[in-house]
Amino acid sequence: MTILEQTVAAIRPADPVALAEARAHQDRLTKPRGALGALEEVAVRLAGAAAVSPPPLPAPAALAIFAADHGVHAQGVTPWPQEVTLQMVGNFLAGGAVANAFAAQVGASVTVVDVGVAADLAPAPGLTISKIAYGTADLSIGPAMTAEQAVAALETGIAVARELVDRGARCLITGDMGIANTTASAALICAFTGKDAAGVTGRGTGVDDETLARKVEIVRRALRVNGLASAPGSGSGTPGSGGVSGGRTGTPGPDGVREGDPGASALETLAAVGGLEHAAIAGFILGGAALKVPVILDGVIAGSAALVAAALAPHAVDHCVAGHRSAEPGHAAALDHLGLRPLVDLELRLGEGTGGLLAHPLVCAAVRVMHEVATFDSAGVTDKEA
Amino acid sequence: MTILEQTVAAIRPADPVALAEARAHQDRLTKPRGALGALEEVAVRLAGAAAVSPPPLPAPAALAIFAADHGVHAQGVTPWPQEVTLQMVGNFLAGGAVANAFAAQVGASVTVVDVGVAADLAPAPGLTISKIAYGTADLSIGPAMTAEQAVAALETGIAVARELVDRGARCLITGDMGIANTTASAALICAFTGKDAAGVTGRGTGVDDETLARKVEIVRRALRVNGLASAPGSGSGTPGSGGVSGGRTGTPGPDGVREGDPGASALETLAAVGGLEHAAIAGFILGGAALKVPVILDGVIAGSAALVAAALAPHAVDHCVAGHRSAEPGHAAALDHLGLRPLVDLELRLGEGTGGLLAHPLVCAAVRVMHEVATFDSAGVTDKEA
Repeated sequence: MTILEQTVAAIRPADPVALAEARAHQDRLTKPRGALGALEEVAVRLAGAAAVSPPPLPAPAALAIFAADHGVHAQGVTPWPQEVTLQMVGNFLAGGAVANAFAAQVGASVTVVDVGVAADLAPAPGLTISKIAYGTADLSIGPAMTAEQAVAALETGIAVARELVDRGARCLITGDMGIANTTASAALICAFTGKDAAGVTGRGTGVDDETLARKVEIVRRALRVNGLASAPGSGSGTPGSGGVSGGRTGTPGPDGVREGDPGASALETLAAVGGLEHAAIAGFILGGAALKVPVILDGVIAGSAALVAAALAPHAVDHCVAGHRSAEPGHAAALDHLGLRPLVDLELRLGEGTGGLLAHPLVCAAVRVMHEVATFDSAGVTDKEA
Repeated sequence: MTILEQTVAAIRPADPVALAEARAHQDRLTKPRGALGALEEVAVRLAGAAAVSPPPLPAPAALAIFAADHGVHAQGVTPWPQEVTLQMVGNFLAGGAVANAFAAQVGASVTVVDVGVAADLAPAPGLTISKIAYGTADLSIGPAMTAEQAVAALETGIAVARELVDRGARCLITGDMGIANTTASAALICAFTGKDAAGVTGRGTGVDDETLARKVEIVRRALRVNGLASAPGSGSGTPGSGGVSGGRTGTPGPDGVREGDPGASALETLAAVGGLEHAAIAGFILGGAALKVPVILDGVIAGSAALVAAALAPHAVDHCVAGHRSAEPGHAAALDHLGLRPLVDLELRLGEGTGGLLAHPLVCAAVRVMHEVATFDSAGVTDKEA
C-alpha cells in the first residue's frame, strides 16, 4: 500500500463506548447538565476520536502553515501580487505575522511548509521545503495539478503531521498561505457540496465587486473545463448533482458510519481545481486522524481541504474540530457539509491558521473540564437533577 | 467624597487620540485591512480605555467570583437548593469547579468573595469574607437591599478590584455564584432597558416551563412592588418608559459622550431588585475602569451588573469587553443596551466567570497583534491597499 492508502486505512471512527462514557461523565460534573453548551460536545467528540474518556489534553499544539502559489492568479482574481506568498513566508519565519502572535499566545509551535511557492526558498529554521511545483497550473484552463502531484502533496501533509506528533504535538492546527487560494477553495467546495459558485465564492482578503464577479465566473469555468459536477442553476455541469462527495463517493453520514473508498474521483477533483496547500492540508488532516491526534481546522482553505479528506476517509472528520467560521461564504457551506460547528465566529478572514489558533484554548478548556472538575458526589454538592 | 463617588469621578472616557492611533496602526500591519474582524475592534477599544496605543497586554488576569444568596429563592424560581451557593464556594476553594479549570487554562488567579452567602464561611486561602448580609430580602415583596447595603456591596467590589490590581492583575474578569441570581438579573435588565419580563427571563441553570412562568411573574411583581418602570405590555409600570437608565438617568450614548450623574435612581433600582453579588460586580467594574484596567464581563449576571455600573458612570463601559453571550435571553438585551459585542458565543449558561475566562486568550491575542506583528514596511511585504 502507498502511504496515502495506509493512512486512510488506519483512520478509525469515533469510539461509541468512549463517546457514551464521556457524555455520562459530563453529567456527573458539578455544573448543570449541558451548561457548557458546545464545549461539552467538543470534549465528547475528542473522547470518541481518542477512543478513551476523558480524552488526552490536546496540548501542546503545532501549527503547520502550508504555502503554495496558484496559476489562476493570472486571471486577476485578487489584487495582491503573487510574490506576497513568498514575502509572507519570510514574515512567518521572522515571527512577524499574526499567526506568530496568536501562536505565541496559545503556546503553539509554528512550522512553515513550502509545498508549492513559485520561487526558491533558502533553508531556514522552522521551514520545511517539500516543493512539489512552482505553483499550480491555471485551474480555469485545465487541471491545476497532475494526480501524481496531488498525491505527493497529500503525502507531504501526512509526513508533516507524523513528524509534528513525533516531536510531541498532541493537537495539530491547519494553516495556509497562498495568494489566490480562496478561488481554488471555492471550486473545491462547489465540486464537493454541489453548491453554485455564486453562493460560495467570497471576497477573500478583500476584492471589489468587479473582481468578485470575475472570480465567480472563473470558478464556474474551472468546474466546466475540468468536467466537474456543479450545482443546478449554475449553467454548467450535471443538473441535480450533489457534487463529488454526494454524487460519486458518497457523503459521510452524521455519525460517520459509512465506510469510504480510497476515493479516486475525490483525488481527480482535488487535482483538477485544488491547490498544493489544499492537498497538503487534506493529507495533514488524514495524518492526524490516523494517529488519533485531533486536528483543529482553520478557515475556508482548511474547510475545503477537509472536504477532500472526508471524501477519501469519511471518519477523518471525527478527529477534526472546526476552529472558527471565516467571513468567506463558502466556509459555512463546507462546515455544514462536514457537520462541524465552528467555535470562534468573529469575522476573521486572514487564514494562516489564525482562526484555528484562537480556538485552541477553548478546545483545551473543554477537555480540562473532563480531567479536573469535581463530581457532585466528590464535592458534596447537591445535584437537583440526580 | 465617598469611595464610590471618588471611583465614579476617576473614570475617563475612551481617549480619542489613542483610538485613532490604534486604528491607524491596525491598517499598517501585515494583514488585509479588517482581516481580524471583531478582534481589531477589541484592540482599538482597549487602546482607547488605556489612553495609549498599543494598549498594555491584559495579562495576568484575575477572576473574582462574588457569592451571595437571594431571598427570592423562597418563591421557587429554581430547582436548586439555596445551600448549593455555599457548597459551590467550597468547590471553588478546593479547585474543583469549571471556573477553576478554565482559570488554570488561561493562567488567571481565582478569588472568591463572600458578599452575602446565607451561612458563615470559615477563612480559607483565596476567600475574601466581606459579608454584607446573609442573603438579600425577597425582591418580590419589597426592596432586596437597603441603600446602605447596596453601597457597601458596590464599595466591596471596588476594593476587590483595587486589591487585585495592586497584586499585579492587568485584566479583571467578573464571576458570580448565587442560586436564584438570574431572577434578580432579569429584574435589573427589565428596569434598566425597559424590556418586558417575558423577553428577558430565562431558564437559568435549567428550570422547567412551569417554573419559568412563575419566574416571569415574580420578576413582574418585583418591578411592581418596588415601583420600578417596566416595559409596555407587561401590565405594570409606566407605559412607554424606557427603563431606569433611559427614563431616569439617561442611556450612555454609543460614544460614551454623555456625562453621568452619581445615579441616585440607579442605586435605588439596584437596591430594590439586585443581588449583593450584582452590586459588588458593578463596583468591581467601576473599580477596574477607574484604574484603567480592562474588565472582561462574564454572562447575564455581569451584563445586568454592567447596566448598573453604566448608569452610575457611563464611561465605565469603555473599559469593558463582553466575554461571551450566555444562553439567557436577557443577556443579549443587556449587551445591546450597553453596545457590547460578545466574543464567545457557545451557549454556555453556567456563570462563575466561565465565559469571561474563555474570552481572555482572545482579548490577549487581539492586543498581542498590536505589539508583535510586523508592518508592511518593516517586513517588506507588498501592500495592495497602500
